[in-house]
Amino acid sequence: MRAIAVERGDSQPRLIEKPRPEPGPGEALVRTLRVGIDGTDFEVIDGNHGGFPADSDHQVLGHEAVGVVEASNDTDLEEGQLVVPTVRRPPNTANEYFRRGEPDMAPPDQCLERGIDGAHGYMADYFTSPAAFLVPVPAAFEATGILVEPMSNTEKALEHASASRSAFDWQRDAALVLGNGPLGLLTLARLQSEFDRTYCLGRRDRPDPTIDLIERVGATYVDSRETPVTDVPTAYEPMDLVYEATGYAKHAFDTIDALEQNGVGVLLGLPGDDAFDVEGGRLHRSLVQGNKALVGSVNSHVTHFEAACETLSALPDWFGDALVTDVFEPAAVDDAFSRSPDRIKTVIEFGSR
Amino acid sequence: MRAIAVERGDSQPRLIEKPRPEPGPGEALVRTLRVGIDGTDFEVIDGNHGGFPADSDHQVLGHEAVGVVEASNDTDLEEGQLVVPTVRRPPNTANEYFRRGEPDMAPPDQCLERGIDGAHGYMADYFTSPAAFLVPVPAAFEATGILVEPMSNTEKALEHASASRSAFDWQRDAALVLGNGPLGLLTLARLQSEFDRTYCLGRRDRPDPTIDLIERVGATYVDSRETPVTDVPTAYEPMDLVYEATGYAKHAFDTIDALEQNGVGVLLGLPGDDAFDVEGGRLHRSLVQGNKALVGSVNSHVTHFEAACETLSALPDWFGDALVTDVFEPAAVDDAFSRSPDRIKTVIEFGSR
Repeated sequence: MRAIAVERGDSQPRLIEKPRPEPGPGEALVRTLRVGIDGTDFEVIDGNHGGFPADSDHQVLGHEAVGVVEASNDTDLEEGQLVVPTVRRPPNTANEYFRRGEPDMAPPDQCLERGIDGAHGYMADYFTSPAAFLVPVPAAFEATGILVEPMSNTEKALEHASASRSAFDWQRDAALVLGNGPLGLLTLARLQSEFDRTYCLGRRDRPDPTIDLIERVGATYVDSRETPVTDVPTAYEPMDLVYEATGYAKHAFDTIDALEQNGVGVLLGLPGDDAFDVEGGRLHRSLVQGNKALVGSVNSHVTHFEAACETLSALPDWFGDALVTDVFEPAAVDDAFSRSPDRIKTVIEFGSR
Repeated sequence: MRAIAVERGDSQPRLIEKPRPEPGPGEALVRTLRVGIDGTDFEVIDGNHGGFPADSDHQVLGHEAVGVVEASNDTDLEEGQLVVPTVRRPPNTANEYFRRGEPDMAPPDQCLERGIDGAHGYMADYFTSPAAFLVPVPAAFEATGILVEPMSNTEKALEHASASRSAFDWQRDAALVLGNGPLGLLTLARLQSEFDRTYCLGRRDRPDPTIDLIERVGATYVDSRETPVTDVPTAYEPMDLVYEATGYAKHAFDTIDALEQNGVGVLLGLPGDDAFDVEGGRLHRSLVQGNKALVGSVNSHVTHFEAACETLSALPDWFGDALVTDVFEPAAVDDAFSRSPDRIKTVIEFGSR
């Protein structure tokens, strides 16, 4: 079968041929329809994040997938069922985090991540998975099912952010998303139903498809070159929620200044090893006197995938089409992994139903 | 009546005479029994925190008080009832935070703080207060009622910290308190029932009464000169909860390193304007991949005072006596506000029942 993989020592993803996997006990065989590309894939390709599967000279990419159950094997899944796979797998036998159904809470050394860290991903004609890690999705998700995994990360992040504000009567009106990549835009769409006013920070010139999408969902575009994060309260308003999806470490600390009294910043980015000066005393005081919180969030588990399906179903019809700007065949791997400012979400299509 | 106050332009608290206050509508007159001294009082004396009441040439100190209702006036309180007053008051008419019963969530410019910021405190023979801000406490609290206010801050901080961990199955075994002042020690005693292993950071040499108390409650003393906060995970273990009560800004950031996967750091200190270098990228990543949270917390409201009463009632009998090391008459104001390493909690006693 076809697969898109990075080989050891290489710095480019290639289309390769490899044997179709055989499902083991408790596993289903899934025929892949679509796989999304995101920033983490480029981090993996560049060797900055994750690692190859043990004993493999290559790593199949891809962790945002939708497919059809081809062989249910000994599982309860129905053949033909549309499914989205979760990302984390136990390294050997299941540990406490997997037993509790919360693999997203496991430390990095107690889980593998398919397509990212120590396990092959989903950019192939077929993949196998334990049924417990395959989330059934409605038939209408054939095209947009690749958005379930990224949206599930937002579901988890917002669940943890809200939990951190649940000990009092949280008044929330305004939210700021840092980052206009696909995850930022998905989150911005998600926040429309919960916040009166939403803002999205980027550093692009008009005309730009992300700015168009930001304004089409009803949000305000904030150009970080004109308005740094720390200036947002005076230029716009202080924010009850800040969602960081840039992976730019200064944003994690600047978030404290962007927050309204009793606000929460939820951090999802994975920056490099930057060191810098902070006004630590003032930030510490602002956290305390402002009853503010910073909450880190990574990955997601099955209930977040289910919540993501409901969220995506409730978004306007045009949204998925506007977000997924580019669809490529697997043979067009070089084009698919090139970068262009005209693109928002790029997808590789392995097949259709 | 007698009162302990700082006069404008002075840098020492003095015993003064001033008229006994008259309760207004909805207010009771309280006869003060005891008032505790804490670090905030010294900040106020030094002019580093809070401010004088408008139109007053002096500020009566004290925000940790216990007293007896002397005149219930038109309130529902019973004369002779032991009460502890809360700290925050509305600046003029009640704003939304006071209407919701959550004055602790108000921004600094939407509240006064008795004895601290813009309102006279409780270090006087009598004080008046709206009944809604007087929390009835059991008669047994005559001596230790001054601990209700500081413990209420811990009740709120731990409520917010736990809330931030309520979206998953939080496994908590180990807790670290940063700071061996009275608030840190109260918190350490409070944490014994919820954590298997507790630690308290200080910078004192043995023999020392705070180290004795740390060990008597069953916790481990961590000398920050030998083991900086960032080394705690290797020297001892990573912490599920870190409670910061030092007001040292680096500790707020070092807390991220001290936390276990999925842990929470709750910050209560009010540092000065220190600026310093941080390994921002690494700390940001640690928050995200570790699902860690930092939660700021200030002040407390009536339900936290009620919870503090229950907590204090459940502590061992010896604890209050061991914590309150020094009791002075109001006339001994100079002695009361001098500092000594042999002291833990100093109290000024205005009267008895």
